[in-house]
Amino acid sequence: MSQEVLLLPGDGIGPEVTAQAARVLDWMIDHADLDLELSEALVGGAAIEATGEPLPDATLKAAREADAILLGAVGGPQWDSLPMAQRPEKGLLGLRAELDLFANLRPAILYPELADASSLKAEIVAGLDILIVRELTGGIYFGQPRGVEERNGVRTGFNTYVYSEPEIERVGRVAFETAMKRGKKLCSVDKANVLEVTVLWREVMTRLAAEYPEVELSHMYVDNAAMQLVRNPKQFDVIVTGNMFGDILSDCAAMLTGSIGMLPSASLDVNGKGMYEPVHGSAPDIAGTDQANPLATLLSVAMMLRHSLGQIDAADRLERAVQSVLAADHRTGDIAATGETVIGTQAMGDAVIAAL
Amino acid sequence: MSQEVLLLPGDGIGPEVTAQAARVLDWMIDHADLDLELSEALVGGAAIEATGEPLPDATLKAAREADAILLGAVGGPQWDSLPMAQRPEKGLLGLRAELDLFANLRPAILYPELADASSLKAEIVAGLDILIVRELTGGIYFGQPRGVEERNGVRTGFNTYVYSEPEIERVGRVAFETAMKRGKKLCSVDKANVLEVTVLWREVMTRLAAEYPEVELSHMYVDNAAMQLVRNPKQFDVIVTGNMFGDILSDCAAMLTGSIGMLPSASLDVNGKGMYEPVHGSAPDIAGTDQANPLATLLSVAMMLRHSLGQIDAADRLERAVQSVLAADHRTGDIAATGETVIGTQAMGDAVIAAL
Ligand SMILES: CC(C)[C@H](C(=O)O)[C@@H](O)C(=O)O
Ligand SMILES: CC(C)[C@H](C(=O)O)[C@@H](O)C(=O)O
Repeated sequence: MSQEVLLLPGDGIGPEVTAQAARVLDWMIDHADLDLELSEALVGGAAIEATGEPLPDATLKAAREADAILLGAVGGPQWDSLPMAQRPEKGLLGLRAELDLFANLRPAILYPELADASSLKAEIVAGLDILIVRELTGGIYFGQPRGVEERNGVRTGFNTYVYSEPEIERVGRVAFETAMKRGKKLCSVDKANVLEVTVLWREVMTRLAAEYPEVELSHMYVDNAAMQLVRNPKQFDVIVTGNMFGDILSDCAAMLTGSIGMLPSASLDVNGKGMYEPVHGSAPDIAGTDQANPLATLLSVAMMLRHSLGQIDAADRLERAVQSVLAADHRTGDIAATGETVIGTQAMGDAVIAAL
Repeated sequence: MSQEVLLLPGDGIGPEVTAQAARVLDWMIDHADLDLELSEALVGGAAIEATGEPLPDATLKAAREADAILLGAVGGPQWDSLPMAQRPEKGLLGLRAELDLFANLRPAILYPELADASSLKAEIVAGLDILIVRELTGGIYFGQPRGVEERNGVRTGFNTYVYSEPEIERVGRVAFETAMKRGKKLCSVDKANVLEVTVLWREVMTRLAAEYPEVELSHMYVDNAAMQLVRNPKQFDVIVTGNMFGDILSDCAAMLTGSIGMLPSASLDVNGKGMYEPVHGSAPDIAGTDQANPLATLLSVAMMLRHSLGQIDAADRLERAVQSVLAADHRTGDIAATGETVIGTQAMGDAVIAAL
C-alpha cells in the first residue's frame, strides 16, 4: 500500500517552495521506487480566502489520514488585522494541536560552503551543529484562560503558561533520545528562578536524567541561553525547552548560521508521524517572484523520508544532492555572496533533481 | 540637604564592584562638591545569610527613603535549591515591585576600543548603540495565579502573563520619550499573532504613537526580533517590550557587544527615582578574586547621577573618565584581547579615579 504524503503549500513563498518538493518527490516515485501518493490541501491564508477558515475540516481530515505532511508557510500582512481566531497562524497551531505534534526538532547547522553568510565571526560558528527540541502543543501558546477583558473598568490582557508533568516528560524523552543519537549533551532551558511552571520543568528533566545516565544534562536560564547562543553556540549539542522559549531561541539559533533559507524542521507525534516545514516564514515580500530558496523545504522532505516514511536511503540521497548542489556553487539570493551568480527557485529545484 | 544613595552590594562579585562605586562617589563628595550621603544595606543571598530573608524590612525602608539605589548583583549556586519565595532573586524582584520601578533602561553600546570582543563580525556591530526599554514590574514575572499543584491527579505548573492598559501605557510613554531624545525610532516587540495579552500591548503602543508623531513606531514578533538582533542589530534604535521578552532580548543585545562587563542599567519609577545596576550577574565563579570588571557598575553610577540625582556634570565627567581609561588600554580580564595586560577590579577603580 502506498504511503500518503499531504502537501500544504500555504501562503507567500509556501506554494513555490512546496512545488519544488513535489517535483523531487515525483522524481523519487518514478526513479527511486518510492511508493508514495501525493495530495494537496489548503491551510492558512489560502484556506481563509477559499473557505473562510484557516484550517478547514477537509484539510484536518486529510492531515489525520496522511502518513506525513509537508507544510510551506502560513501568514501575510493581508490577514494581520483579523481577530486571532481567524488568522492564518491558527491553521498551523490547529494542526499542531489536533495531530498532537508535541516534539518540534529544529536543527541549526552551518554549511561549510555558506560559512560567510553568518553575521558571526567564522571561528565562533565554524562547524556549528545544534538541535533545538521545542515543546509544540502546550505552554503559553495553548494555555487557558486567555483573552482581553475589563477588570474593574481597566482593560487587561492575559495568557496562561501551563505544563503538566506528562507533557514535560514526553518531550523530555524525545530530547534525551535525540541526545543519545548525537553528542550526548542536553541543555534544558527554563526560567526556574522566576517561573513556577519551569521549576516543575526542571524537576522533571532532572528526574528523567537518571534513565539516561550517558547523557550529560545541564540547566540554563533562558536569558543566559540567549547570551550563550551569541557568545559561544558550539558549547551546545541538544537544547530542550518549552514552546515560547523554543520559538525565540530556535529563531536566534537559526540566524547564527546566516542561512535560514537552508533549515528544515520536523514536528512529531508520539508515534513519529510528523509535519515537516522549512524554518523560514512566508516571506510575502518575495512571494511569486521565483526568488525563494527551496532547499530548506527539500531538506524538510529528507527529514520526512527519514523520520516518518522509513526511507533512509532516499533521505540520504536527497541530502547528498543538496550538498553537491551547494558544492557546485548554485545559490539563491539569500545564500549568495557578493559577486556570485544568483539562480531562482525553479532553477535550484532543477539543480537538485539533476544531482539526484 | 544631602541626597541619599543606598548601596546594595548583594552577592558574588556584587560587593567588589560596589566597593569601587563607593570609592568613586567618595572621591566626588570630596573633590567635585557633591552633597551625597552613602549608606549600605543587605539584599539577596547576603541578606538571607544574615536575616533569613532576601529583602529584610530594614533594607526596604532604607530603599524607600533613599534618593537613588545602586545594586551590585544577587544570587549564587548555594541558594539555588531554596524554595522560590526565599531565593536571593526575590530580593531584587521585591525591590522592583515595592518601589514601582516599572521602566528598565538597558543600553547595548559597542565601545570602539572593545570592538574585537564581540562574537559578531566587526561591520555588523561597529557603532552599535541600541536601548531596550523593558517593563519591569508586571507581565509573567508577577502575574497571579501561579504555582505548582495537582489537577486531576496530575502535577501541573502554571504562571500568568498579564498586563493592564495603564501598565502598558506608562512604559510605552517612557519608551516614546526616550526615543524622542535619541534616533526617534521605536520598535515594539510582542507575539501578537499568538498571545492575546500582547494584542493589547500592540494596540496601546499604536494608540500612543499618535501623541509622538515624530517617532517612527514599528512592531516586531519576538522570535523575529531575536533573529534581527543577530542579523542586523544596527537597524534598531529603541526597543520596548514586556518583562519576560525584555529579559531575553536585553541579554542577547548585551552579548552582541561582547562586553557585558561594560553595560549599566537603570530601573525607574514614575518620578524618575531609580535603582541602578550592572547588567552582568553575580558571577560566583570569580567572586572575591579581584577579577571582576567594575566599569558596568561605574557607568551605572553615571546613569544614577544623571537620571536620579540631577548631577549631569558629574555624570559626564565619570563617563569621560571611563572612556579615557579604555583609551589608555586598561583592561580587566573580560575585555582584554590576547596579549593585553590584565588588571584587577581594584586597579581598574584606581585608574578611573586617577582619570577623574
Ligand atoms: C507563525 C507562528 C505562529 C509560529 C510560532 O510562533 O510557533 C512560527 O513563529 C514558528 O516558529 O513556527
Ligand atoms: C535575576 C533575575 C531575577 C533577573 C530577571 O530575570 O529579571 C535578571 O535576569 C535580570 O535581567 O535582571
